[in-house]
Amino acid sequence: MLDQIRIVLSHPQHSGNIGAVARAMKTMGLTDLRLVNPRDAIDGEARARSCGGLDVLLAAQVHDSVEAAVAGCRTVIGTSARIRGLQFEVLNPRQIAERLRDEPGGLPAAILFGREAHGLFNDELALCHYHVYIPANPDYSSLNLASAVQLIAYELRMATVTGAVVPTEPGDLRDLPASAEYMDELFVHMQRVLLQIEFLKPTASEKLFERLRRLYLRARPSQREVNILRGMLRATEEATAAGGEATGPGDAADQNED
Amino acid sequence: MLDQIRIVLSHPQHSGNIGAVARAMKTMGLTDLRLVNPRDAIDGEARARSCGGLDVLLAAQVHDSVEAAVAGCRTVIGTSARIRGLQFEVLNPRQIAERLRDEPGGLPAAILFGREAHGLFNDELALCHYHVYIPANPDYSSLNLASAVQLIAYELRMATVTGAVVPTEPGDLRDLPASAEYMDELFVHMQRVLLQIEFLKPTASEKLFERLRRLYLRARPSQREVNILRGMLRATEEATAAGGEATGPGDAADQNED
Repeated sequence: MLDQIRIVLSHPQHSGNIGAVARAMKTMGLTDLRLVNPRDAIDGEARARSCGGLDVLLAAQVHDSVEAAVAGCRTVIGTSARIRGLQFEVLNPRQIAERLRDEPGGLPAAILFGREAHGLFNDELALCHYHVYIPANPDYSSLNLASAVQLIAYELRMATVTGAVVPTEPGDLRDLPASAEYMDELFVHMQRVLLQIEFLKPTASEKLFERLRRLYLRARPSQREVNILRGMLRATEEATAAGGEATGPGDAADQNED
Repeated sequence: MLDQIRIVLSHPQHSGNIGAVARAMKTMGLTDLRLVNPRDAIDGEARARSCGGLDVLLAAQVHDSVEAAVAGCRTVIGTSARIRGLQFEVLNPRQIAERLRDEPGGLPAAILFGREAHGLFNDELALCHYHVYIPANPDYSSLNLASAVQLIAYELRMATVTGAVVPTEPGDLRDLPASAEYMDELFVHMQRVLLQIEFLKPTASEKLFERLRRLYLRARPSQREVNILRGMLRATEEATAAGGEATGPGDAADQNED
């Protein structure tokens, strides 16, 4: 989907903004940039601001009308800082992205952005099937041009990746959440040590220990982390035994087994 | 919700970027900007780029450490360009925004952004409860600093304007996630006791303690739960002192203050 969506800048006034738009597009996987009568040529400022999006910038096509820039598109979407009456269907960036994803017959599509200070003119908006409205702060809704492109490109990407964060390889088994038995052994050990140091009282501290159990369960510790906690418990037993009641040397050797 | 979320820029290198961040925040209704050791002062370039976000820029507080900048926050979120293993829960911007909306007990919250070229350092990421990962183009994922702030601020705003904010009763303050300072005091105490019982070695156990820190941060303990953990630490100190090195009677009286 992303390679069938073009970003059209109508009459951009600052070359630096064009570069920043190219960068924003590249970070979200968009590549097709069209410029309608840019005031400035693609200069050093544009190249500097494009950073890793230089290829997108240098491949940008220049047109002499918005109509030429959107030629071949089945859907044309205009960005608007204001909601202008009810003649057009107005969607937010998320709704636009989901619609393009769910109605692939609408591709290729163009998303139009107007002049930095003015937005799209009425004759440009009239070319559009939908308007997209960024739900900004009503007290100050003037996004930088590249920021507006960034938001919409982000929603397009989110719509295609859905679910988004792919878990990394699990790797070492000991880094997976510890099993229920493993946790039970931890709690048995913990309870014994907490009784020994008289933090828990033999008959009256059930509720307190239950709170602790919940806290540790909530953390979903890995097997390796449970080993560290048990190492702490053994060190406590030994430090106490050194002077207080004898409990023997314990099996502290593997406390740092990770 | 938006006025309880602060944006923290750690060591920003370009004043223009700070201005652009202020603008991005303002367009989405965020107002609390914190700067940790910015390289440049707030100069003309910063003011020019802030546009209508000048008030946010001029109200920005400057701190000399990330810890100071996040003081008082119940949730600290780090932005990360990479997914770094499984020790941290990694969420995308939408998930972060929905979680902050649906768990109002996590507010106030801080979202940390690292240096332009490097992102957050490991010691900064270690302060965080979650990491947020922008699902960018794997071939080029380097968003401009202001663009990254813009995306996350946009999701925060979207979460407040869409989906109903469930006004769960805050209830007892002690059942809300403990603040960053409260957790810091826990860790200072824990490290002291673990050195005393020789679980940690004075010079060689940094990585081990770092793992423990992450485990406890991940559990998001409430103030009440932190009090229980500190009660355990005091009981350990006393049990050890009873026979071993003297540490005095401690202040165990309030160990069960909940």
